[in-house]
Amino acid sequence: LGRLHVYTGDGKGKTSMAMGMAMRALGHGQRVVIIQFLKGQETGEQNIKNFNKKLIFKKFGSKNFIFEKKNQTDYTIAVDAVNFTLNILKTKPNLIILDEINVALNLGLISLDSAMTIINSCPKNTELVFTGRGAPKKILDIADLVTEMKNLKHYFNRGDKAKKGIEY
Amino acid sequence: LGRLHVYTGDGKGKTSMAMGMAMRALGHGQRVVIIQFLKGQETGEQNIKNFNKKLIFKKFGSKNFIFEKKNQTDYTIAVDAVNFTLNILKTKPNLIILDEINVALNLGLISLDSAMTIINSCPKNTELVFTGRGAPKKILDIADLVTEMKNLKHYFNRGDKAKKGIEY
Repeated sequence: LGRLHVYTGDGKGKTSMAMGMAMRALGHGQRVVIIQFLKGQETGEQNIKNFNKKLIFKKFGSKNFIFEKKNQTDYTIAVDAVNFTLNILKTKPNLIILDEINVALNLGLISLDSAMTIINSCPKNTELVFTGRGAPKKILDIADLVTEMKNLKHYFNRGDKAKKGIEY
Repeated sequence: LGRLHVYTGDGKGKTSMAMGMAMRALGHGQRVVIIQFLKGQETGEQNIKNFNKKLIFKKFGSKNFIFEKKNQTDYTIAVDAVNFTLNILKTKPNLIILDEINVALNLGLISLDSAMTIINSCPKNTELVFTGRGAPKKILDIADLVTEMKNLKHYFNRGDKAKKGIEY
């Protein structure tokens, strides 16, 4: 199996980190896949797809997703995301990033079984990356690398608003 | 003054995070500067400079830098990096990333005074990012945002070697 990286915690930087990882691998001409779970909105990072034709970038998530009010559509989209992931793993990319999958797991949009199927389908030389706060313990236990992004201080807590180019 | 972000800690992901931040801002057409301290070697992430003409990417650091045996050249290069930073701040970029500056501070290649001069020269709407393990307490105290990338588990500890596209 390929190695499993988990980037979790409540600090700023998880999605950015994943984009930077993609950039580094693409810089060496490697094949990279980024699959964003729970990202319906427009984001600055999606422009990474214009950078390199070797990058496959796919967003799943309804535009009006609300954490507290998930509905049937959100479950259907999550299943689509899992199936897309399983299919693309067969192409043996060098790096595959499942952005915010930990949150989807936490919300119950994706089952732990589905996550395990993904992990167990990861080809030997593929690096598999899970991001998002609140990664389940089972995932942390089997991961080959875990970095916790810990929020020590954040300007949101003094009332600053999310800023274009920095938060999205 | 612009806001100061600090990404520190011993976990994997700090430089990648910075590259991803750059990507996000560039995706919105913003002006971004990345200055790498202590990075003499070739890296995959340096290819980010081919992505967008609005990005200014500059590496400082001798090719054969050794932590334990720093010499006069390393100090000279560090001063160059600080001066380059101070000059480029005058152009008021949206985002400026000083990659590994925390390590340069820790090693004494850059003085805390120089770092404070940089911080105090940061224009109001510029986001200033410091990365690297071991950020000095003074820097953490005045930062507007601090994320600690904490190593909870790493495959290096079981003997895996650094891999192209993943570690560099």
